[in-house]
Amino acid sequence: MKVGIIGLGLIGGSMAVDLRRRGFADEVLGVESDPVNAAAAEKIGLADRIVSFEECVDEADLVVLAVPVGAAVKMLPQVLDRCVTQRPAAGPDGKSIEHQDAESRKVVIDVCSTKEQLARAVKYHPERRRYVGTHPMAGTEYSGPWAAMPGLFDGHAGIICDAQESDPKAVRTVECLYETLNMRTIYMDSSSHDVHTAYVSHISHVTSFALALTVLDKEKDEKHIFDLASGGFSSTVRLAKSSPDMWTPILTQNRDNVLHVIDTYIDKMQAFRTAIEEGDEDAIRGLIEESNKIRRIIR
Amino acid sequence: MKVGIIGLGLIGGSMAVDLRRRGFADEVLGVESDPVNAAAAEKIGLADRIVSFEECVDEADLVVLAVPVGAAVKMLPQVLDRCVTQRPAAGPDGKSIEHQDAESRKVVIDVCSTKEQLARAVKYHPERRRYVGTHPMAGTEYSGPWAAMPGLFDGHAGIICDAQESDPKAVRTVECLYETLNMRTIYMDSSSHDVHTAYVSHISHVTSFALALTVLDKEKDEKHIFDLASGGFSSTVRLAKSSPDMWTPILTQNRDNVLHVIDTYIDKMQAFRTAIEEGDEDAIRGLIEESNKIRRIIR
Repeated sequence: MKVGIIGLGLIGGSMAVDLRRRGFADEVLGVESDPVNAAAAEKIGLADRIVSFEECVDEADLVVLAVPVGAAVKMLPQVLDRCVTQRPAAGPDGKSIEHQDAESRKVVIDVCSTKEQLARAVKYHPERRRYVGTHPMAGTEYSGPWAAMPGLFDGHAGIICDAQESDPKAVRTVECLYETLNMRTIYMDSSSHDVHTAYVSHISHVTSFALALTVLDKEKDEKHIFDLASGGFSSTVRLAKSSPDMWTPILTQNRDNVLHVIDTYIDKMQAFRTAIEEGDEDAIRGLIEESNKIRRIIR
Repeated sequence: MKVGIIGLGLIGGSMAVDLRRRGFADEVLGVESDPVNAAAAEKIGLADRIVSFEECVDEADLVVLAVPVGAAVKMLPQVLDRCVTQRPAAGPDGKSIEHQDAESRKVVIDVCSTKEQLARAVKYHPERRRYVGTHPMAGTEYSGPWAAMPGLFDGHAGIICDAQESDPKAVRTVECLYETLNMRTIYMDSSSHDVHTAYVSHISHVTSFALALTVLDKEKDEKHIFDLASGGFSSTVRLAKSSPDMWTPILTQNRDNVLHVIDTYIDKMQAFRTAIEEGDEDAIRGLIEESNKIRRIIR
């Protein structure tokens, strides 16, 4: 299979590496609009060929949209538009379109962290059924082609959204892709996806950003932070290194869910504040014991 | 040197392991009030002998108080009291007390995460100069003798507080101890210590506790948390597994500093909330870019 990846950053680049070395892709075509990233991706060898957007969509059997979600919402309809344009021209051997469709139908996926707006953007697109909304839930706080790494997805969850809106064959292609990446496939609708990721992913980033801002604001002497930061602080603040290009559109696109989680979070923070202010050791202990229950769930 | 460790949990137990295997301690005496922990510490072999509090203080050349800070504030004067009691009886060979003092003077340290109240508790104690306030800034979210591990302290910062209040020889003993544990020694007064640790350690724990409470409160289906939790969430919420026995007294003893940091933190959270609510992408991006500066400091 020829896999075209638009955006050779952390996710797209890591996918390119594993899909090729594990035999899912015979050839990887890469699209990278940033010239520095394109040169790096080529040097690292993430793709077999760096091509244009149009070449990628025309040639690939599977198109992976691996750009920040703000750009993806604009590009996804363009990718599907091009699939329409391409259909009539795609039968040089004289096979009927229907026949060709049955034989091999181009599949388009995205790998973004919010799903509802993408689903909405192509809801009535005539080529909607080629598209599968996917979210491989893996990553690091680093970005760009340099951040790509083999094995990034191993053991993590891979979500397929609104499977009933896609061709069963397209869904099967994604299931094979997740199997190749050693991911556990999970199915949900885009709306639930955005609620759950607000809780288990987006809020973690906001709390880390806020923590970094707090410490940078107050600890004017960076040496103290450097000297005193233990593993605990580093672990909690790690996500604050995450890219604004990726996270600005996630937070705006998942606005309502994220605001709801932030409000609950601030309530919990206030509960701690009150207990500490009042020196109420029983209340503090109660809050900590309750939060300890996360042990049951997270290793 | 005979090292007596009161409290064979994560910190005391890990110290016992490295001090003995690296030759700093010829013998480790352990005190453990909890019978289950005492049996475990004995089974694991953290100490050469499990002894009583009194035997430990009487026999050890270096007494390490490795209990939660609430208990430590009560025990530290008791340890120093016993050093007074012991002094006149300590010369069976007829050597004068002064001579014996010069020869080998018992040193007492604590390893707690807050320092000001401990310093205050023994400020006017006649044996104050035997005591050195120390804080080896290393740990994990686990506790108890099972959590003890070799190499826990390697490469981290070891703080010595109010060095001028202690005998230079006692300070030198702690410097050797930190060298043995491969720690970078840092000096500061207890008041600054408590301000800095509020920023780089205590707030991280509160943000993790609040994050765990938020997710547990809202994600009633634990399976979703388990399925969807990526490395980022796990890393941010990790400290929420920390022990209430340890953290309740830290948060109450460092009340004013922690409240101040929580207030700044809630302000930063509100800034994100406002930017997201208003869909102000420039403001969101600005906040993330500012928080990214933590990259310069934290690896």
